[in-house]
Amino acid sequence: MKEQIGRVKELAAALEPELVAARRDFHKYAEPGWTEFRTTAVLAKKLTRLGYQVDIGDKVINKDAMMGVPKPAVLKKHMERAIAQGADSALVAQMSGGMTGLVATLRRGEGPTLALRFDIDANDIDESQETKHRPYRDGFASVNPGAMHACGHDGHAAAGLGVANILMQLKDHLSGTVKLIFQPGEEGSRGAAAMEAAGVLEGVDYIFGGHIGIKARHLGDFICGAREFLATTKLDVTFTGKPAHAGMCPEEGRNALLAAATCALNLHAISRHGQGASRINVGSLQAGQGRNIIPAHAVLQLETRGVTTSIDGFMAQEARRIIEAAALMYAVDYKAECTGATQGGESSPEMAEMARTIAQEMGYFENILGITSFGATEDFSHLLTNVQKQGGKGTYVQLGADASAGHHHFCFDFDEKVIAYFSEFMARAACRLLGA
Amino acid sequence: MKEQIGRVKELAAALEPELVAARRDFHKYAEPGWTEFRTTAVLAKKLTRLGYQVDIGDKVINKDAMMGVPKPAVLKKHMERAIAQGADSALVAQMSGGMTGLVATLRRGEGPTLALRFDIDANDIDESQETKHRPYRDGFASVNPGAMHACGHDGHAAAGLGVANILMQLKDHLSGTVKLIFQPGEEGSRGAAAMEAAGVLEGVDYIFGGHIGIKARHLGDFICGAREFLATTKLDVTFTGKPAHAGMCPEEGRNALLAAATCALNLHAISRHGQGASRINVGSLQAGQGRNIIPAHAVLQLETRGVTTSIDGFMAQEARRIIEAAALMYAVDYKAECTGATQGGESSPEMAEMARTIAQEMGYFENILGITSFGATEDFSHLLTNVQKQGGKGTYVQLGADASAGHHHFCFDFDEKVIAYFSEFMARAACRLLGA
Amino acid sequence: MKEQIGRVKELAAALEPELVAARRDFHKYAEPGWTEFRTTAVLAKKLTRLGYQVDIGDKVINKDAMMGVPKPAVLKKHMERAIAQGADSALVAQMSGGMTGLVATLRRGEGPTLALRFDIDANDIDESQETKHRPYRDGFASVNPGAMHACGHDGHAAAGLGVANILMQLKDHLSGTVKLIFQPGEEGSRGAAAMEAAGVLEGVDYIFGGHIGIKARHLGDFICGAREFLATTKLDVTFTGKPAHAGMCPEEGRNALLAAATCALNLHAISRHGQGASRINVGSLQAGQGRNIIPAHAVLQLETRGVTTSIDGFMAQEARRIIEAAALMYAVDYKAECTGATQGGESSPEMAEMARTIAQEMGYFENILGITSFGATEDFSHLLTNVQKQGGKGTYVQLGADASAGHHHFCFDFDEKVIAYFSEFMARAACRLLGA
Amino acid sequence: MKEQIGRVKELAAALEPELVAARRDFHKYAEPGWTEFRTTAVLAKKLTRLGYQVDIGDKVINKDAMMGVPKPAVLKKHMERAIAQGADSALVAQMSGGMTGLVATLRRGEGPTLALRFDIDANDIDESQETKHRPYRDGFASVNPGAMHACGHDGHAAAGLGVANILMQLKDHLSGTVKLIFQPGEEGSRGAAAMEAAGVLEGVDYIFGGHIGIKARHLGDFICGAREFLATTKLDVTFTGKPAHAGMCPEEGRNALLAAATCALNLHAISRHGQGASRINVGSLQAGQGRNIIPAHAVLQLETRGVTTSIDGFMAQEARRIIEAAALMYAVDYKAECTGATQGGESSPEMAEMARTIAQEMGYFENILGITSFGATEDFSHLLTNVQKQGGKGTYVQLGADASAGHHHFCFDFDEKVIAYFSEFMARAACRLLGA
Repeated sequence: MKEQIGRVKELAAALEPELVAARRDFHKYAEPGWTEFRTTAVLAKKLTRLGYQVDIGDKVINKDAMMGVPKPAVLKKHMERAIAQGADSALVAQMSGGMTGLVATLRRGEGPTLALRFDIDANDIDESQETKHRPYRDGFASVNPGAMHACGHDGHAAAGLGVANILMQLKDHLSGTVKLIFQPGEEGSRGAAAMEAAGVLEGVDYIFGGHIGIKARHLGDFICGAREFLATTKLDVTFTGKPAHAGMCPEEGRNALLAAATCALNLHAISRHGQGASRINVGSLQAGQGRNIIPAHAVLQLETRGVTTSIDGFMAQEARRIIEAAALMYAVDYKAECTGATQGGESSPEMAEMARTIAQEMGYFENILGITSFGATEDFSHLLTNVQKQGGKGTYVQLGADASAGHHHFCFDFDEKVIAYFSEFMARAACRLLGA
Repeated sequence: MKEQIGRVKELAAALEPELVAARRDFHKYAEPGWTEFRTTAVLAKKLTRLGYQVDIGDKVINKDAMMGVPKPAVLKKHMERAIAQGADSALVAQMSGGMTGLVATLRRGEGPTLALRFDIDANDIDESQETKHRPYRDGFASVNPGAMHACGHDGHAAAGLGVANILMQLKDHLSGTVKLIFQPGEEGSRGAAAMEAAGVLEGVDYIFGGHIGIKARHLGDFICGAREFLATTKLDVTFTGKPAHAGMCPEEGRNALLAAATCALNLHAISRHGQGASRINVGSLQAGQGRNIIPAHAVLQLETRGVTTSIDGFMAQEARRIIEAAALMYAVDYKAECTGATQGGESSPEMAEMARTIAQEMGYFENILGITSFGATEDFSHLLTNVQKQGGKGTYVQLGADASAGHHHFCFDFDEKVIAYFSEFMARAACRLLGA
Repeated sequence: MKEQIGRVKELAAALEPELVAARRDFHKYAEPGWTEFRTTAVLAKKLTRLGYQVDIGDKVINKDAMMGVPKPAVLKKHMERAIAQGADSALVAQMSGGMTGLVATLRRGEGPTLALRFDIDANDIDESQETKHRPYRDGFASVNPGAMHACGHDGHAAAGLGVANILMQLKDHLSGTVKLIFQPGEEGSRGAAAMEAAGVLEGVDYIFGGHIGIKARHLGDFICGAREFLATTKLDVTFTGKPAHAGMCPEEGRNALLAAATCALNLHAISRHGQGASRINVGSLQAGQGRNIIPAHAVLQLETRGVTTSIDGFMAQEARRIIEAAALMYAVDYKAECTGATQGGESSPEMAEMARTIAQEMGYFENILGITSFGATEDFSHLLTNVQKQGGKGTYVQLGADASAGHHHFCFDFDEKVIAYFSEFMARAACRLLGA
Repeated sequence: MKEQIGRVKELAAALEPELVAARRDFHKYAEPGWTEFRTTAVLAKKLTRLGYQVDIGDKVINKDAMMGVPKPAVLKKHMERAIAQGADSALVAQMSGGMTGLVATLRRGEGPTLALRFDIDANDIDESQETKHRPYRDGFASVNPGAMHACGHDGHAAAGLGVANILMQLKDHLSGTVKLIFQPGEEGSRGAAAMEAAGVLEGVDYIFGGHIGIKARHLGDFICGAREFLATTKLDVTFTGKPAHAGMCPEEGRNALLAAATCALNLHAISRHGQGASRINVGSLQAGQGRNIIPAHAVLQLETRGVTTSIDGFMAQEARRIIEAAALMYAVDYKAECTGATQGGESSPEMAEMARTIAQEMGYFENILGITSFGATEDFSHLLTNVQKQGGKGTYVQLGADASAGHHHFCFDFDEKVIAYFSEFMARAACRLLGA
C-alpha cells in the first residue's frame, strides 16, 4: 500500500483543473440548505459514472427528522430552477420534499467502514457584483438571487469528487467500505440529524470531515482535530396577538411586537453557565404592519449554543420558558419551532494523531496544529458524536486557504489550490485505514 | 331654621381656637393608616363627652375587608405608643388588629340620614425639623418617627370635632340622623372599603366629604364637587427565586431581581386606554442581598389607577398577568397581594349646586368653582359611589388654604383659618338637609 | 339665496350616479400618500372642465415641508403606473417628487373665502379578493397591489367633485371665494403641513372638512363638530450596529436588534400625562438578517399622540431621548426622521352650530350630535388650527354610512348614498357663507 | 536544611491547640473588610512579641487606592467596638480611615524575598444561632451583628500566626526575607490593590497564598495551583431623578426606578465573550420610597467578571456605557463608583510543581491535583500577577477541609485540623526557598 499512497499525490495534482471547474460550477449555481437539487443531481451523475453506488432521497434522508425545511412553494420553485439549470428531472423528483444530498458507496470486501463527509449547501446571501470579486469578474458568481457559496462548501463538494476519483483508481488496494457522504443543510445545523436518522452511519467505524479555512487562515496551515464544537439549537418563534387602532382603542390590541421585544431582551439575559461557554442570539425580529396599528404579528429567529450538549440544553430550556413568558406578558399566542440542532463533540485523539502524520507526509504544510478549540458550531459534530457513541472514531480537519474576505461575507473567495490538497488528504486517510 | 343657620357662623368662629389646638395635637401625635389609636381614642372621648353615640372597633371596621394592614408586631408597638401618649387603654384594646376610626351618631327622630366624613390618618414621612417650618418652630411637629400629617387630615379631624360641637348645640332644630364618620387609612385607599363592609353606610341618604387645599389653593377658593376621581388598586408583589454564587455557578440561581426589573418595565408599558385616563406606578422595588449572589428575593409596591372603575379594572388585570409572566420569565415564585383599592366616581350635581349656595352664603369665598376634575384618587369616592348606588346623593368639596409646601411634602403646613370654615360649611349643609 | 339652497338637494340627487362612478374609479386605482398621481390628474381634468382654476405641483405643495415621502424609485414607478392607468402625462410631470393634490378655486368677487377640504389618498393594504366583498364582486376592487381605499377617501374625493359641480351651477348667487382643497397624504399626517406651507390657507376665513363614517356609524347619523383631535408625530428610526459571528466572536458585534427591542419597550413605558390623553405605538420593527449573525440593522416605525399639541410634544421629546439612549445602550448609530405630524384642535362652536342647522334642513338625519370627542388623529386639524390662528373658523363633520367592516380593514366598503349627502352638505354650507 | 524541614512537622503539630484557639478568637470577633481593627491589633501584638517587624496603617495601605470603604461613621463605630473588644487603642488609631491589615517582616540577610499572604476579613452575614452549629454551641459564634467568618479567613489568619511562629524558631537556617502579608478586604476585591499601591510587593521574588476548602473539599485533598482566577470589577450605581405625584402629574417625575430596571436587564444582556468566560451580576437594587410617588432614587450593586483581565475590562466598559444610557433613557442623573477590582491570573507552573513536592512530603494528602481552574475571583490574583510582572513567581494552593455548609453560608464551619497543615505547608515552602 505504501507505494499506492505515493500515487495519491500525483492523482490529486492531475485532478486539480477538473476540481476547480467543478467548484466553479457549484459556485455559480449556489443552492442553500434543502434546495441543493442541482448540486446533488450533478454529483449523482458524476459519482455514478465513476462506479459508485449512489443513494439519494429517502434512502439517505429521514423525512421526519428534517428541520428548517422551506415551504412547499419555495421547494417547487427551486426544483424547477434546478432542472432549468441542467439537473436531471428524474433525480430531482426523487428529492421531492427537499430531500437533497447523497451517499456514494464503494464496497471492497472485508474491512472497516470509513465515512468521509462533505457538505454542499450555500448561504442565504446575495453575492458581490464588483469586478474586484474574482467569481464575478471571471463569470462564475452565483446566478441564483439570495444564494451564494460564502463558506467554501462548493470547494468541499469538489474535493469530495476528487476523493471519489482517486479512490476508484486505487480500489484494488482497498479492503473495507468507503462511504462518501455529501450532506445538505450544514448551515443552520439541519442536515446531519436527518441523514443519521436515515441510517447513514450504520456500521461506520471511522468518520472524517473537514473545512477549508476557518481557523486555518493561510495555505500551508493545517489543524488536525477540533474540540469545543458548540452544540446548538435553532428556534423560529411566532407571536400572534390582535390588531387595534393605536389612536382610538389601543387597549383592545394584543401587542406581539412588545412580546417579541421583551422576549429578545430577556433571552439575552439568560445566565452565563459556570461549566463553560454558552451563546444566545436573536438573529432577526420582524414585527408589525403599520405605524398606527397595534402590532399583531412577530417572528423571531434565534439560536442557542453551548460548549457541551448539556449547556446548550440548559440554554434552550431557558429560552423556551422565556418565550412562553413573553407571550403571557402580552396575552398573545405563540409557537416555537425547532429548525435545527446539533451536538457538541471533539475529535478522537488517535485520529487527530493520524491526521498529523498524513499532513506531515503530504509535505505542503508548514504550520500544523493539533486538536484546537473550534468555538463554533459544525453540523459534523452530530455525525462524529454518533459514530463515537457506536464505538467508532473520527476527526475534523481544517486546511488553510487565503481568503479574500471572511466566511459568510458577500466577497468571500479562497485559494483554489486547497481543493486538491483536501482530496489528497482524505484519499490518504482512506488508504491508511483501508489499505490491504 | 334660617335663623339657626345664622348662628352657625358665630358658633364656628367661636370654636376656632379650640379647633386649632385640636389640629396641633393630632399633628404632634401623627399616626398613619390602621395605627390611629391615639387619634381615635382622643376623638372618642371628646365626641362621647359632647353627647354622641360613638362606635369603634369591629362595629365600624369589617376585619375581613381591611387591606394593607401593618404586621402584628408593628400594631402592638403603635398601640403601646398610643397609650404612652395619653390614649385610653380600654379604648385602644377595642381597636386591636388595627381597627381604628369611629362613627359618632346623633339621632333626631324622623328624617333623612346624612353622613359627614373626615379622614384622620397621617403620611409615612419624617417631618421637617427646620425652624422655618412652623410646626417644628412652634413645638407641634410630629414626635412619631416616620409619621407626619402632610396632607391636612389633622385639620379634617379637627373640623369634624367642630361640626360635632355645632350640631349638638343646634340639635333641637334637626330632624333625622347625622353620622360623623372619622375614617382611618385614607392614604393607600384602605379604610373606606372596610367601613362600608361593616355597614356604616346603611340607610345613608346624603354624604358629604371634603379636603383642605388640593386644587383649591388659596384661602377664599372653594370647589363645589369633583369628577374624575381615579379608581385605584394597590398591589404588593413578592418574587422568590434561588440564590447562587454569581461567579462559580450563576446558572443554578433563579434571579428574582431580574424578574422584578422586567416586571416593572413591562407594567409601565401597559397600553393606554382609549376610554380615558389610566395610571401605573411601581413606587418601590427592593431586591437582592449581596453583590456576588444571584438575587433570590424581590419586593415591589405598585398601584394602578383609572378614571373609571372599569379602566382601573383593565389596568389591574393587565398588571396581574404581567406579574405572573415575569415570574415565569425567571422561573421564580410570586405572590401578589391587594393592599388597597377604591372606586372612581363623581359628585351628584344637585349636591354640588347646594354646596355652591352654601359657599356663597358663607361670604368668605371669592373664587367658587363647580364640579371640577379631581384627577387623583380619594378613598371617599368608594363611600360616595356606594351611597349613590343605594339611591343617595353626595358631593366632595375643597376649601382653599395657602400652604407652605405641596401636599405630602415634609414641610407641608396650611393656613389654619380654613378649619373653622370647614366646620361651618359642613354644619350648614346638615342644617339645610335636616332642618325642620 | 334661500331658493337656491332649495336647488342644492335636487342637484346633488341628480349627480348621485356620476359620483358613485367617480368613487369606484378612484377606488379601483387606489394610490397611497404622495403617489396620488392618477387621482390628482383625473380630478384636475374634471375640475378644469367644470371651470375651476386648478393649481397643482409646487403651487400647492411646499417641497421642504413634505414628510414621509417615498423614495425616488418608488415615485417613478408610481408615476409610470398612473400614466399607464390613464393619467395625463403632462399633469403627472408637474407632480414630480410626489407633489400630488390640488386646489380648485372659484372666485366670485367680494366676500369671504371658504375652503372645503377633501382627502384623496388610499391605505397601504391589499384589498380583499373574496366575492362577499362588493368592490371585488363588482369589479372595482383595487388593481394596485398594496393599495386600497379602506378609509373612504375615494368617497371624499367623489363628494368634492359633486360640490364643485353644484357650486359652479350656483355661481351667480355666490359672493366671495371657494377653494376646494384636494389633500394628499392624510394617512400618516403628511399632507396638510406641506399644503399649508405652500400658502394654500392664505386669506381663508372659513374651513370645512368631513369624513364618511368613523364615529357616525349609520346612514342618518350626523356629527356637527369634533374636539380632541389627537396631535401626532410620526418617526422612522434606524439603528446601525456591526455584524459579527454569533458563535465565534459575539462581543465584536454591535447589536441593533437589542437596541430596537429596548427602545420599543422603554418607549411604551413613557409616563402617562396628567393633563390628558397620550399615545405611543411602535407599529413595526424589522431587525437582523441571519440567525447566527449579531444583528447590525434595525428599523422602527412609531408614532406619538396627544390630546393637545403640547402633550404630543412631551411624548415626542421623550421618544427622541429614549431613541438616543437605546443607541447608546448598545453602542450603535441611529437616525430618527420625522415622517409626519399634525396638531390637536377642535371645531369652532359657531360653525358646528351652523352644521347642525344645515343637517336639520337636509332632512336625512335622524341622529344629530354636537361637538363630539374624536379621540384620534386627523390631518385636517392642522388646517383647522391654522385657519383659527389667523382669525378664521371651521368645523369637521362626520356623515354616517353603514360599512361592511371597520375602517382600515381589507373588507371595508360603505353605503354610497352618503356621497351625495356629503356633496349636498358642503354645497349648502357654501351657500350659507357666501350667499349674496 | 533538610533536617530543619523535618522539624517543621513537629513544630506545626505542637502549635495546633494554640492555632485553633486563635481561629476561634478571630471567629468570635468577626470583622468585615476595612473594619478588621481588632483582628489586626491582635495579630500585631502577637507578631511583634514573636520578634517580627510589624508595619500597619499607611505603611501598608495606600489610602488613595482603597475601594469600597465604609462611611466614616461606620468606621468610627467599629473602631470603638474593636477597642471595647480588647484592641490596643494606639494601634487602632494608626488604622484610622479603615487602614487595617499588616505586614510582618523577618530579614535574614542575603537571599530572595518570599511573601506569604493570609486574608483576614469576615463576611457581611448574620451567623447561625442554632445549637447544631458548632461555633454557636461552643460559644465562639460571632458576637458582631451582620459579621461572620463564613469563608475560613479566620483559619487563614490563625495559620499565618502558625507560620510566623515556626519560621521564627528556624530563623537561623533562613537566608533572605520573609514577608507575612495579612490582607484586609479580600471579600469585594478591595484590599490587594491598596497594599500593592503602598509598595508591599517591592522586591518580592516569590509569593504564596492559599485557601481552606473551596475546590478541595475533604481533609486530605490538596490543589497545587490555580488558573482562571476571574478578574472582577465592582460598581455601586446611583440614579437620581425627580419625584412627582403618580396620580396627578406623573409626567413631571423622572423615574429612577425604571432607569435601574432597564439598566439591570440590559446589563445582563451584555454579549458573551468569544475568548472566554465572563460574568455579570446586579446583586441588589433598592429603589423608590412610596407607592404613589414617581421613584426619584435608586441604588444598584453590581459586579462584572472575566477569565482574563481583558475580558473583565470589556464587561466593565460595556457596563459603564449601559449605566450612562439607562440614565439618559429616563433623564435622571447617575453616579457609578468602583468599589472593588482585581485581576485575572494563574499560578507559575514551577511553583505549583514545588507545592506538589511539598504536599507529597507532608504525607497527609491522598488526593493531590495540579493547576486547576478556579473559576471564581480571588483578590490574591492581583498580588500574584504583580509579582509575576516584576519577574517573580508564585502559586495559590487549596487545602481540603470537610465543611458543615458551603462557603458564605450562615452555618459554615470547617475541620480545624487543616489550620496546622496550612502553617506547615507555608513554613516548608519558606524553608525550601530560603533554606541556606
